[in-house]
Amino acid sequence: MSGTEYPEGAIKCLDKGFIRLVDSMGGDDAIVQAARVSYGKGTKKVSQDRGLIRYLMRHRHTTPFEMVEFKFHCKMPIFVARQWVRHRTANINEYSLRYSEARDEFYIPGKDDIHFQSKLNKQGRAVEEVPDELKEKIIGYFRDVSEQSFRIYRELNEAGIARELARAILPVNIYTEWYWKNDLHNILHFLHLRMDTHAQYEIRVYARAMATFVKKIAPIAYEAFEDYVINGMRFSGPEQHLFTKRIPPRVVEDILEDIAYRIVATLHRNKTRTGDELYELYRKNGGKDSRTDFELKWASGEVEPGNVRELREFKEKLLQFKV
Amino acid sequence: MSGTEYPEGAIKCLDKGFIRLVDSMGGDDAIVQAARVSYGKGTKKVSQDRGLIRYLMRHRHTTPFEMVEFKFHCKMPIFVARQWVRHRTANINEYSLRYSEARDEFYIPGKDDIHFQSKLNKQGRAVEEVPDELKEKIIGYFRDVSEQSFRIYRELNEAGIARELARAILPVNIYTEWYWKNDLHNILHFLHLRMDTHAQYEIRVYARAMATFVKKIAPIAYEAFEDYVINGMRFSGPEQHLFTKRIPPRVVEDILEDIAYRIVATLHRNKTRTGDELYELYRKNGGKDSRTDFELKWASGEVEPGNVRELREFKEKLLQFKV
Amino acid sequence: MSGTEYPEGAIKCLDKGFIRLVDSMGGDDAIVQAARVSYGKGTKKVSQDRGLIRYLMRHRHTTPFEMVEFKFHCKMPIFVARQWVRHRTANINEYSLRYSEARDEFYIPGKDDIHFQSKLNKQGRAVEEVPDELKEKIIGYFRDVSEQSFRIYRELNEAGIARELARAILPVNIYTEWYWKNDLHNILHFLHLRMDTHAQYEIRVYARAMATFVKKIAPIAYEAFEDYVINGMRFSGPEQHLFTKRIPPRVVEDILEDIAYRIVATLHRNKTRTGDELYELYRKNGGKDSRTDFELKWASGEVEPGNVRELREFKEKLLQFKV
Amino acid sequence: MSGTEYPEGAIKCLDKGFIRLVDSMGGDDAIVQAARVSYGKGTKKVSQDRGLIRYLMRHRHTTPFEMVEFKFHCKMPIFVARQWVRHRTANINEYSLRYSEARDEFYIPGKDDIHFQSKLNKQGRAVEEVPDELKEKIIGYFRDVSEQSFRIYRELNEAGIARELARAILPVNIYTEWYWKNDLHNILHFLHLRMDTHAQYEIRVYARAMATFVKKIAPIAYEAFEDYVINGMRFSGPEQHLFTKRIPPRVVEDILEDIAYRIVATLHRNKTRTGDELYELYRKNGGKDSRTDFELKWASGEVEPGNVRELREFKEKLLQFKV
Repeated sequence: MSGTEYPEGAIKCLDKGFIRLVDSMGGDDAIVQAARVSYGKGTKKVSQDRGLIRYLMRHRHTTPFEMVEFKFHCKMPIFVARQWVRHRTANINEYSLRYSEARDEFYIPGKDDIHFQSKLNKQGRAVEEVPDELKEKIIGYFRDVSEQSFRIYRELNEAGIARELARAILPVNIYTEWYWKNDLHNILHFLHLRMDTHAQYEIRVYARAMATFVKKIAPIAYEAFEDYVINGMRFSGPEQHLFTKRIPPRVVEDILEDIAYRIVATLHRNKTRTGDELYELYRKNGGKDSRTDFELKWASGEVEPGNVRELREFKEKLLQFKV
Repeated sequence: MSGTEYPEGAIKCLDKGFIRLVDSMGGDDAIVQAARVSYGKGTKKVSQDRGLIRYLMRHRHTTPFEMVEFKFHCKMPIFVARQWVRHRTANINEYSLRYSEARDEFYIPGKDDIHFQSKLNKQGRAVEEVPDELKEKIIGYFRDVSEQSFRIYRELNEAGIARELARAILPVNIYTEWYWKNDLHNILHFLHLRMDTHAQYEIRVYARAMATFVKKIAPIAYEAFEDYVINGMRFSGPEQHLFTKRIPPRVVEDILEDIAYRIVATLHRNKTRTGDELYELYRKNGGKDSRTDFELKWASGEVEPGNVRELREFKEKLLQFKV
Repeated sequence: MSGTEYPEGAIKCLDKGFIRLVDSMGGDDAIVQAARVSYGKGTKKVSQDRGLIRYLMRHRHTTPFEMVEFKFHCKMPIFVARQWVRHRTANINEYSLRYSEARDEFYIPGKDDIHFQSKLNKQGRAVEEVPDELKEKIIGYFRDVSEQSFRIYRELNEAGIARELARAILPVNIYTEWYWKNDLHNILHFLHLRMDTHAQYEIRVYARAMATFVKKIAPIAYEAFEDYVINGMRFSGPEQHLFTKRIPPRVVEDILEDIAYRIVATLHRNKTRTGDELYELYRKNGGKDSRTDFELKWASGEVEPGNVRELREFKEKLLQFKV
Repeated sequence: MSGTEYPEGAIKCLDKGFIRLVDSMGGDDAIVQAARVSYGKGTKKVSQDRGLIRYLMRHRHTTPFEMVEFKFHCKMPIFVARQWVRHRTANINEYSLRYSEARDEFYIPGKDDIHFQSKLNKQGRAVEEVPDELKEKIIGYFRDVSEQSFRIYRELNEAGIARELARAILPVNIYTEWYWKNDLHNILHFLHLRMDTHAQYEIRVYARAMATFVKKIAPIAYEAFEDYVINGMRFSGPEQHLFTKRIPPRVVEDILEDIAYRIVATLHRNKTRTGDELYELYRKNGGKDSRTDFELKWASGEVEPGNVRELREFKEKLLQFKV
């Protein structure tokens, strides 16, 4: 098989595939613009835009994220395309083997990609190492089947057999390619599912590469996505019940204290205050330390600012632990 | 390869596939009910329901057809599934080769299914006959590749290799299966595209089988679909221009006369009228024959009734030819 | 305004609206069937079906829930319909004021429905009580505007003015009605957003009524939805960080102990075991108590069984707190 | 009511509304690029691109048109927005009366917009003139109801009543606004339905304005849309039957002759030929005139070139008339 060519700006994926951003419309700005649905309220500060985007992400106000559009050019094995295509909001134009001849490009797994079936996870790969010899045998099989079926495909083609039938002999590791267009909201959903450790390794490679482009075009939205969707943790009702029962009230109080300090630090950063005002602000935000303790802690320099709104929402969540 | 089992009520498709109706919700009644969006206007006659459904189809009032839902169980080769899945409004649950083991069932084309590439139609098959010997060779290839790749697949499986990787060696003629659920409007769109002579033979087989079930559940809607969508003819602006220029006014007049007679016959069938009333009705509907000629023609018994509304709409269309 | 009629089986909503289930296709069974994508593996025990449905819900395997379809007939004020229609996967047939005359039915809020604008929540109502006198004045306004605009509408109608224009004078509290068809997955998404305390009161009434029907048709799926979606709790990355830092290792150990006990109780319920086997099972599941302590606790009868798979997943989540 | 401001580049619609193009991604080029799904086959001539786009439109190959995206900012009365929102593939961010205060802007129909209800068309307006006095009365009603309801709305707002409730008193002629994003294929579908004479006048105004922007961004696609979708004519099966029966074979022959001449003219334009070659080409394309007649006709200069592929497809359609 001959060398694969990569279009400019493409990120290589697997042995012969790639993904590249062809075009995009809008970015963080377009999210803010849509959320404000207004034209002429003047430019807001970046910090406010960031706060707004994070608020939207946190509260699942998804429509403003739909206002950003991406178009990718992707090349991947058919078995990867088959998972990918299930994301139904995308627009797709795929290379057609009814119209055009197949190309001699097949996915041959590398040694690192070959694993045993996981015993725990019915759909995954185990961590246990496959013996090198077996790996080589498997790689050989992939090569042989790919070469042989392509040889037959070519023979049928040369004999003038209808392409739409001849291609039926090709294995699902053959590469196909497409243009794939989707909006940011649905792309983030795709990334959430396909960058996950439960997703098949071969599609995860593409999802991670796609994420690189998304991050470049809409960095604030992507950061919010990481903070609230990717890195979050979810407890079910029954779990939460077990959890709440066991958390000592003291722990909740401690976290609430942390929050009070961080709110003060954040407000202070945005608008400087004097000592007395600071302690008052701290008390108003639910802080319970004495003035002396407050001053000590404050002076320690350990208090990190954050986002006031987020911290207040966290506080409300924690209060549920006290019931 | 062992014998394929077919679930009850399934229509066999290709050599080992099938399609069967698992469940459905509503039929012609549900279309009428949705179109009327009312509860308690009393039962209407079937003839009126039919007229309403045909009116809706003719005028592309598509939402009432979305109120009928079908769920099918289908088994087809992957290369067919890949075309099918592009109909994005459907809900799909497919047999997963990440969770479950592949089964030794491959599509092997029959002799009648093997054709040359069409020279005229880049995506189709030619009518020209393929020599029998070549056909047999091709069938042999399909068998060999299928058997060999399955043998390797099984070996990898037995060695404990992750299923999600092992399956990547299988060809696209392997059978997969799924539950496929969709509404009538979108199913008719699917049928329109996939029963068409431009669709690949292998998916046409499934579309035609699906149509059998649809016809049974919603016969009036299906008939309207045939009359207005499948069997209609469409002229583009430029074509219509060329056409109109060449049609002699006399021809248009003749068709308009036909229409006037048919409208009268239809109204007469619904409510009987006497001789004088008939001629008057005929004149009112644009008929230009003399009373004597009208009586002669009427007595000939050649006038067929139709649907008044449809005939009047046709008349309006024809008047554009007179400009 | 005359008395509103309610169709059979309808749940009354607001002062003149309702929602009723017209038809449905499938239920918990259909979810299981789709998840298994197989026909003839024999009937499984209900307990296994329940486990499977809960597993699917927990892991966001959403497609099997799409296999269940509901069709509702709903009557609601236009301003409620305007929020509702944004759920784009639904099929809708609405009463059209271009074809049909408007009916004299308007939403007049009751005293309990009138609240001040929330200061905290830009889109909500405050808890603070509105004076009775003001409430009565407002109700009077609603009545007056509704009556007056309908009087004018009727006058325009009687004068023969085009209905599509005349209706433009009507306020958004006039009732409209529609058939609304959707699949279970998307209905649960609707319920999640619209039963939420952040949703407008007037649409929440409909969402809660809709939930009653859904619960009846797919009780196991609905219960899982409550446990994992409605009643769960979600921590963002930054929150989780703050949280983890403060939870003493001892607390996590205690919860892990709880889990070990519950897993044993669950396995024991499914298949009875003797004393020795129990302790061994307990140790195998990560329990750290001594045999004596185990026996004491076990004898206390306080250990509740649960779902083994869920408990193990919870355990894995907790282990992240120990890092 | 104060003067309405229009953002730059907006097309004014109705008395206070507008539509403007905020952003777009791709144009005719993107359609061609997607159809070719390739990167580097060199630049093709514009004439070929045009032929390809027209071919795609003619054969309903809709996916390449989905690769072009538009984002509009629109301001329209609620009753118009209610029709518009039914196009479900669009992404929408609307001005929310739960978050923000309503603005005092209502659609007041002009004298030219007031018509009687059509007797023929249940959903339309008649051509018959409404007396001037009645028109003025109606305009007065619209003004009064708008002003009065807004006065009450403002009073409720000032009294601090929740905005989400207060807005329920406003009529559907109040203006709202939104960002609306959609792809070209679905926009053309929107235009097809909403520029149609059966669509309500008030939404047609917006559709026509939208078309202006679309035409600018993708002129070749828009022209093909006009030729094949807007200006085409469709005959149902039964109509075609009536039609075919009455068209004299001579007429069909004449049109086929026209086509043969036009094909020759087109091929000649693309590549010049000498006299003898021309006649041969003409015969090969089904022409039946004698050499002398051919030369006379050709010399007349009346033969217009067209698109060879389109003409051949028309020919095939016509041959069905000869059966």
